[in-house]
Amino acid sequence: MTRQYRAAVMPGPGHPIEIQELDGPELEPGAALLHTLYSEVCGTDVHLHHGRLAGVPYPIIPGHVSVGTLAELRGAITDVDGTPLREGDVVTFLDVHETCGECWYCLVAKQTTRCPARRVYGITYGVEDGLLGGWSEAIWMKPGVRMIRLPSDLAPETFIGGGCGLVTALHAVDLAGIKLGESVAVLGVGPVGQSAIAFAALSGAGEVIAVGDPENRRDLALRMGATKTVGLDAPPNDRAVEIRGLTGRGVDIVIEASGDPSAVSQALDMVRDGGRVIVVGQYTDGGEVALNPHLQINKKHVTIQGCWGSDYSHFHRAVGLVTRNQSTIPWGELAGQRFSLDQAGHALAAVERRDVTKAVLAIGAR
Amino acid sequence: MTRQYRAAVMPGPGHPIEIQELDGPELEPGAALLHTLYSEVCGTDVHLHHGRLAGVPYPIIPGHVSVGTLAELRGAITDVDGTPLREGDVVTFLDVHETCGECWYCLVAKQTTRCPARRVYGITYGVEDGLLGGWSEAIWMKPGVRMIRLPSDLAPETFIGGGCGLVTALHAVDLAGIKLGESVAVLGVGPVGQSAIAFAALSGAGEVIAVGDPENRRDLALRMGATKTVGLDAPPNDRAVEIRGLTGRGVDIVIEASGDPSAVSQALDMVRDGGRVIVVGQYTDGGEVALNPHLQINKKHVTIQGCWGSDYSHFHRAVGLVTRNQSTIPWGELAGQRFSLDQAGHALAAVERRDVTKAVLAIGAR
Amino acid sequence: MTRQYRAAVMPGPGHPIEIQELDGPELEPGAALLHTLYSEVCGTDVHLHHGRLAGVPYPIIPGHVSVGTLAELRGAITDVDGTPLREGDVVTFLDVHETCGECWYCLVAKQTTRCPARRVYGITYGVEDGLLGGWSEAIWMKPGVRMIRLPSDLAPETFIGGGCGLVTALHAVDLAGIKLGESVAVLGVGPVGQSAIAFAALSGAGEVIAVGDPENRRDLALRMGATKTVGLDAPPNDRAVEIRGLTGRGVDIVIEASGDPSAVSQALDMVRDGGRVIVVGQYTDGGEVALNPHLQINKKHVTIQGCWGSDYSHFHRAVGLVTRNQSTIPWGELAGQRFSLDQAGHALAAVERRDVTKAVLAIGAR
Amino acid sequence: MTRQYRAAVMPGPGHPIEIQELDGPELEPGAALLHTLYSEVCGTDVHLHHGRLAGVPYPIIPGHVSVGTLAELRGAITDVDGTPLREGDVVTFLDVHETCGECWYCLVAKQTTRCPARRVYGITYGVEDGLLGGWSEAIWMKPGVRMIRLPSDLAPETFIGGGCGLVTALHAVDLAGIKLGESVAVLGVGPVGQSAIAFAALSGAGEVIAVGDPENRRDLALRMGATKTVGLDAPPNDRAVEIRGLTGRGVDIVIEASGDPSAVSQALDMVRDGGRVIVVGQYTDGGEVALNPHLQINKKHVTIQGCWGSDYSHFHRAVGLVTRNQSTIPWGELAGQRFSLDQAGHALAAVERRDVTKAVLAIGAR
Repeated sequence: MTRQYRAAVMPGPGHPIEIQELDGPELEPGAALLHTLYSEVCGTDVHLHHGRLAGVPYPIIPGHVSVGTLAELRGAITDVDGTPLREGDVVTFLDVHETCGECWYCLVAKQTTRCPARRVYGITYGVEDGLLGGWSEAIWMKPGVRMIRLPSDLAPETFIGGGCGLVTALHAVDLAGIKLGESVAVLGVGPVGQSAIAFAALSGAGEVIAVGDPENRRDLALRMGATKTVGLDAPPNDRAVEIRGLTGRGVDIVIEASGDPSAVSQALDMVRDGGRVIVVGQYTDGGEVALNPHLQINKKHVTIQGCWGSDYSHFHRAVGLVTRNQSTIPWGELAGQRFSLDQAGHALAAVERRDVTKAVLAIGAR
Repeated sequence: MTRQYRAAVMPGPGHPIEIQELDGPELEPGAALLHTLYSEVCGTDVHLHHGRLAGVPYPIIPGHVSVGTLAELRGAITDVDGTPLREGDVVTFLDVHETCGECWYCLVAKQTTRCPARRVYGITYGVEDGLLGGWSEAIWMKPGVRMIRLPSDLAPETFIGGGCGLVTALHAVDLAGIKLGESVAVLGVGPVGQSAIAFAALSGAGEVIAVGDPENRRDLALRMGATKTVGLDAPPNDRAVEIRGLTGRGVDIVIEASGDPSAVSQALDMVRDGGRVIVVGQYTDGGEVALNPHLQINKKHVTIQGCWGSDYSHFHRAVGLVTRNQSTIPWGELAGQRFSLDQAGHALAAVERRDVTKAVLAIGAR
Repeated sequence: MTRQYRAAVMPGPGHPIEIQELDGPELEPGAALLHTLYSEVCGTDVHLHHGRLAGVPYPIIPGHVSVGTLAELRGAITDVDGTPLREGDVVTFLDVHETCGECWYCLVAKQTTRCPARRVYGITYGVEDGLLGGWSEAIWMKPGVRMIRLPSDLAPETFIGGGCGLVTALHAVDLAGIKLGESVAVLGVGPVGQSAIAFAALSGAGEVIAVGDPENRRDLALRMGATKTVGLDAPPNDRAVEIRGLTGRGVDIVIEASGDPSAVSQALDMVRDGGRVIVVGQYTDGGEVALNPHLQINKKHVTIQGCWGSDYSHFHRAVGLVTRNQSTIPWGELAGQRFSLDQAGHALAAVERRDVTKAVLAIGAR
Repeated sequence: MTRQYRAAVMPGPGHPIEIQELDGPELEPGAALLHTLYSEVCGTDVHLHHGRLAGVPYPIIPGHVSVGTLAELRGAITDVDGTPLREGDVVTFLDVHETCGECWYCLVAKQTTRCPARRVYGITYGVEDGLLGGWSEAIWMKPGVRMIRLPSDLAPETFIGGGCGLVTALHAVDLAGIKLGESVAVLGVGPVGQSAIAFAALSGAGEVIAVGDPENRRDLALRMGATKTVGLDAPPNDRAVEIRGLTGRGVDIVIEASGDPSAVSQALDMVRDGGRVIVVGQYTDGGEVALNPHLQINKKHVTIQGCWGSDYSHFHRAVGLVTRNQSTIPWGELAGQRFSLDQAGHALAAVERRDVTKAVLAIGAR
């Protein structure tokens, strides 16, 4: 007999979050069941609630990055090192799965984040598909979902603080190719921006300049590794001038993690000639921005790199990096406030109001 | 006693070209004098005549890429291989010089095309500075100007056909990093576009799609190495759809060499997800273009690379590449029409009217 | 009732090839059966016959790259573009399969050629495993084996001429990162060397110098795209001096495709300071070579890149490149002689004696 | 009237160091005179004393990296940012100069460390050429020598501790391209190795394993940033096994900084498949090493990168990096012992006996 689990369901854009009792999965070979400890509530969930992502099969169970305890496994499941996973293990899992490994993007271009078959927990599955989102007492690990056992010295609270922004930011910082001593500006002090700041600092950047509001997030940015912060009071042009002034000729690298289309133009004004701009924050369609290709691209000899999604390599390395650097970087604080599963709607509202960088649902007990 | 030479002078934006008699230089040690054989008339000269480049010290002698015979040398001058140059040698020279080798851009960033000290023959010198442009019977090679002896089996007419576009295009194609079999679209069929087509084909690109008008330039593009051509009759959106259709998922690489700001947006619509766009055509300020960072940059995971100027390495390799491939690639035909020095104004008008891709001034006799 | 097929079996190192009647497979879902048209006999097969590869489960059916007609499919099978494969299609397939997509090398390092789970048709399967080698009237396409339909304008004879060397050489040339006009020396004029010569020429290399014996292979190298050839008469030191002399300072890139350990040292003597050496020919253990790290690596500031195996991307692109360039590059001639299936032992002996670069078994009729 | 200065002269290989009184230079325009504060005594000086470098014009004044006070300038001299240098400034300077900026290596290959015209203070100048080594009360800054003002918050003692090894190590770590979390082994715990350890740690490496003797240098390595150390007691094979065991599959990157040819083979045994080996330690000819190209290069799919010299960019960035990280990394301790100018011979002997990693001559007073 199938057990039932409580889940926080988003019925559709604009509708209030509802708690529902849903059937647990019947595990096929290679599948597993997770008893959720934590799931995050982030800006993407707000976008989902605003109906700004295409093709979402509402009603859905949101929650793409989560941590849980392995409650049941059907058959042997191993991690990438070949070590078997076991009941009781505290794990997280890559929300993106079903990357096909058979299409041109997977096999020829080797850009799996553009594989058309990918599915994402908490986003591309409907309630009818099963417990495939983190805002739930249990999560169904379909066969092939990549799980990672959290190291025993890493508190789940710390990892979930970083959450999805952590993984996205690592991809962006990889693409930035920071050399020792280079200066980096990060636009945006939300979850992706904060982790980008941390990773830029860990990469040996000279200056790491955090640009964004409000003040308490800038303060957090300093503890994440920023060397300087700049708020949004001044008009964008003055801001670019200020940031150019901090290094004399513009920063070597700008990581755009704010999601505001106009920030791409500001990034191009802040970066030095021959520098690099990584555009990672534009996860939803915020409209257009006017650029001057002569002045901002051609004559500047600049490189602009779009960064979409992340793959298992970023996820795997991110867990290692959080573990190794948890004593100096306060990833846990990114999760500004904890809520129960029943309070999921309040959590979402808090993130929407920007009361907190992100919220965490504390669902199970360890 | 200083000899005098005839030169075609551009007195200022909009003013007719004038022939003037000007004093030859008194050669300092390390300097030389060239008797001009050919100098080119290209789109940049039209921009100069429209007053669209900043900081030009009119009146000037235009003509940045030229070929001539070494008439006089003061002291020993060698090429990069250490071979002495001699009177009677037929040479070309890098129009960019005085790259300082002492500033942050030269020494730390190693991006010499952004060195603030660079000067350019035919553009940044006034008539008062001396014979420092190619539209003249003689050109003063200041100490440190990098000359290259044309190989004996390379006709000067062939090299000047490629001219400045050749060197710029090589830089752009280097930055594109074309892998064997990749598809490339080149926007623009002017001098830079045509040479970019040739270099893309020589790099082993699969498809090389030339996009531009008029028809006779597209025909030339096919002989330069394009495998397909697309005209500008259809609206930009249909064009992008057509080009995406040619490869199924968009081209791997787009080289924007048209100079039209809107072409940058079209390039982003034509390129496949994860592809690369090189922006090399925006040499003057043509205004802004509206881009959608979510759809055109972030989600596409695309790389955009601005390409400004070129350095000695591109110039050196370009001479070798033209020599080696002159039997299959009709570089000489890029110089659509020859004019005498006295006809320089007509040559400029022909380029402005787009009667020809570029014009050549045949100044001296061999 | 299972049909039987004739296959040429290698019972073990040193034992004569035998023709055996073997049961065809019972196709599981996703599997297919190929009626073999051609399979190749290459240097690796000679190594197999000498017992120089570790872990080979003799008796085996050799033959890793083959072409055949799809005779039967169990269920829908598509190519990477999603197009269904159909009975009667002429296809080739990537001999490497079962790359797991789940281990650290596949998922984190993204170096699938080092995945420990990979299996290779014609090498890592025994006769007991089924028809999993090309020297057979039929080949069992296990589920997940990547097949490519040969374009209608590509003769199977041309493709099989390139065969496995083609794919390996493309990987090596990709790693070489040849820039337009760079000089390349290829050591070895066997199948890998000949295709490396062709791909280097297609990449726009300036000089492509083929180094090897005998003379008829050097002649073929010239038709594959070499600009110069050097035989092995002179002592290695003189050879290096000669090759350095051809460019003045050594070649920009050396591709070692001979398999002789001492060739790695020669490669380092031929390459210019700051150049690149790709080591792709050392597919079996030929012993050691003495190098001087100060003179040959450190002071030369050289890059050495080992190249192991190839993946689907190389295979996919290779088919496209052969199709596109078949009119100028005589890949078909690499298959020096055709043999029937019954003559497989003679074919192997001909390759061992180096009578031919490689041999082809013409097994089925189209 | 020319003033005289005391200098420690190395008359020739094996001859004792002598103190001589030498004439100061007559400064040409663009030249300057430095009153020496510190100069280093490193392994290269031992090699010079053993006669192991080719083409050294004995007698010489050793000392290639030094710090001093600007005592006299002839004309205006600026740093790369265009700021004038002034009397009294405490500066260091790039020992390599006269890189010509005119040859194929400088202009086409852009590998200035292979420019044949380069000269090096303390190595390629004889006493007859003037005060062109650091073991002297004064050093003649020839025109074009690149000086850097030490930041006011950087003690000269700290910078000279890093000295030449600092700059070399930065070049090597740049070439290693360390990604966040990658594991690095550094072979050798001398000046280059210790700084490579520090830069690898600053780059965000996961594990940084220092391999070398004696124990006190390993202890220092831990404070420079190593996470683990391995001594040389065990046979090389066991050592490789141990280091492979620390990461499960070998380290991602090995930096060979020991100078022992056999260490190159060990590096290839320690690195994981698909990893990178940087060979930076082989600055003098220590003879040959036997490698197995199949097992150690080809099959491992490994990259080996030779690293010769360094250029102004490394020097410039190194000063910034030492300044920024001086509170956490004990660069000053690398200078194991201070000696007076008169004790230069003792200093050299101490380095030769490996009593100290390097020695410093404290020549002037601030």
